[in-house]
Amino acid sequence: MQWEEVIPKLKSLNEEYIMQAQERLDQLTKPKGSLGQLEQLAMQLSAIYQSIYFSVDPITHYVFVGDHGITAEGVSAFPSEVTTQMVYNFLQGGAAINVLTKNNNVAIKVVDVGMKDTIADPRLIQRKIKKGTNNFLFGKAMSKKEVYDAIQVGFQLGIEEVEQGAKMLSIGEMGIGNTTSSAAIAAHLLELPIEQMTGKGTGLDDIQLKHKINVIRKAFEKHQLATKDAVETLATFGGVEHAAMTGMIIAASYKQIPVLLDGLNTGVAALAATYIHPITASYMIAAHQSEEPGHAIILKVLQLKPLLQLSLRLGEGTGAILALPLIRSTQHLLQEMATFSQAKVSQKER
Amino acid sequence: MQWEEVIPKLKSLNEEYIMQAQERLDQLTKPKGSLGQLEQLAMQLSAIYQSIYFSVDPITHYVFVGDHGITAEGVSAFPSEVTTQMVYNFLQGGAAINVLTKNNNVAIKVVDVGMKDTIADPRLIQRKIKKGTNNFLFGKAMSKKEVYDAIQVGFQLGIEEVEQGAKMLSIGEMGIGNTTSSAAIAAHLLELPIEQMTGKGTGLDDIQLKHKINVIRKAFEKHQLATKDAVETLATFGGVEHAAMTGMIIAASYKQIPVLLDGLNTGVAALAATYIHPITASYMIAAHQSEEPGHAIILKVLQLKPLLQLSLRLGEGTGAILALPLIRSTQHLLQEMATFSQAKVSQKER
Repeated sequence: MQWEEVIPKLKSLNEEYIMQAQERLDQLTKPKGSLGQLEQLAMQLSAIYQSIYFSVDPITHYVFVGDHGITAEGVSAFPSEVTTQMVYNFLQGGAAINVLTKNNNVAIKVVDVGMKDTIADPRLIQRKIKKGTNNFLFGKAMSKKEVYDAIQVGFQLGIEEVEQGAKMLSIGEMGIGNTTSSAAIAAHLLELPIEQMTGKGTGLDDIQLKHKINVIRKAFEKHQLATKDAVETLATFGGVEHAAMTGMIIAASYKQIPVLLDGLNTGVAALAATYIHPITASYMIAAHQSEEPGHAIILKVLQLKPLLQLSLRLGEGTGAILALPLIRSTQHLLQEMATFSQAKVSQKER
Repeated sequence: MQWEEVIPKLKSLNEEYIMQAQERLDQLTKPKGSLGQLEQLAMQLSAIYQSIYFSVDPITHYVFVGDHGITAEGVSAFPSEVTTQMVYNFLQGGAAINVLTKNNNVAIKVVDVGMKDTIADPRLIQRKIKKGTNNFLFGKAMSKKEVYDAIQVGFQLGIEEVEQGAKMLSIGEMGIGNTTSSAAIAAHLLELPIEQMTGKGTGLDDIQLKHKINVIRKAFEKHQLATKDAVETLATFGGVEHAAMTGMIIAASYKQIPVLLDGLNTGVAALAATYIHPITASYMIAAHQSEEPGHAIILKVLQLKPLLQLSLRLGEGTGAILALPLIRSTQHLLQEMATFSQAKVSQKER
């Protein structure tokens, strides 16, 4: 199955289940609306699963890895080799995302979609589309064909995961330089000033940030990209991992399960997905709003309210898994609390 | 042991362990500071436990229950009987806090410190100080002796809990009318306008909110309380449950374990604790910033940054237990992540 084929088949959420969830929430032994944002989440989840008795488990977290030609311009605080080193760390279980997935009973899978190096380790899922993107200051980061293929990789993995039983997908990434890609993609798609979308990544200083912004500005001048087509935009500025994550979001939307987003890079993949079909936004859950200034703007555009705001700027999907217990708690509250009539509590207000 | 005896013995946090935690955080395979607020939390926890290899488990959550004479003035959206009905619900496991503690592996204990009714059920811890407070519009809510005794109840339970192995205490409350008490206590202690500290509780409309503010204003005019003494203030406007929670905070501070706060009412108990001794704030963790306008102000005064902001307005300790997984995750990240040298990842930035 090709990802383009399912786009016309994507379904909007069924209002009936939003109403069913709202009705049950109002019968539970608590003041109306007093669970705040978790009530909105309960309604969204019920509508996605088409039942108020859903289970969000089992959950698989995917980390998509790619390298970025643009790092040659000195846009990142870390050298490109760190991508490879961190993948070894993922495989050995030492990274933040390993600690979080393990302690939260979430399966983790790491996929090479665009690493410069190749790591021949059976624990790393090998789906390399390209050995690092081209430096987009001088040409397109990838061909359109490569973007299609990368989307297909994420899409295919997502479909298989759901067919093997996953009830929720979670996405994260690793790729030194990818916040530069993200800033460029988002500034282009949203037609917003580059400064608004560009942040310090994993740790630039003010001068380095200015340089990062200038690099993107020069790339914009070079490409003069007019179209807002998602594939064209990803080809021009993208990471392979962005495209793969966009594909996984399409898979979740098609299979009607929620997809948990992490920080700026997953947000940009999500933004791209909505330019392919806006209905994909209904299946997204925003876990954490990162420190990167563009992320808040993207979440607003997607009309997603983040569950957490802890000033994380780590990626990998750490924000996603940190927010996961809130999603499980929402499920439990909706399904396990007593109703007013069960508990014989006066529902009537004074 | 009486709570007053330990006040001069309370200890400030040991900076050495803050530095130890900081050092370890900077060696972990992530950009420096990239775990954001969780890094501050890791340092606080290390300092409280005097080790970076602490465990926050096991955890006991206490729900303190009391009734409020001030409800006669129509300051709450629910009638006073709901306090009793909700306690039955707690005992049967049907309330939000039951669902959350059960699914998060936290022990829950419910204590009658000031209910109007008496429920003869062995699952309810009986420590009644008073059958509901007096209406503070016409006189003091309690005597100073009653406040001392209520603080002692919370203190004693906290000490026993720690001696039985608890490594963290969490507090919540139930008491129709207690946000009115809270607003009065906080406005008095902080010398802030009553309007700034008073919110809609579990669901007042704008006219009812105005009435609630007016009731507090009249009470202020009647009492003309000059002192900022915590015991005197609790006696004048307090709930018995506020005083008991203040006692439990003192116990946690004395036993040097963290105490997890919930919403406005626990925040006011925490504020009162700092008026008894400011060092108690070092042992507090702010879980959730509630919708009640006064809560944000109190947290700012206590210099506590909440982990969550989900527009909850339920009490019971729901915000506390929802934030708990973030605290456990902080522990795991600090203790289980690989260091740069273990993982052979380049630590040096470009």
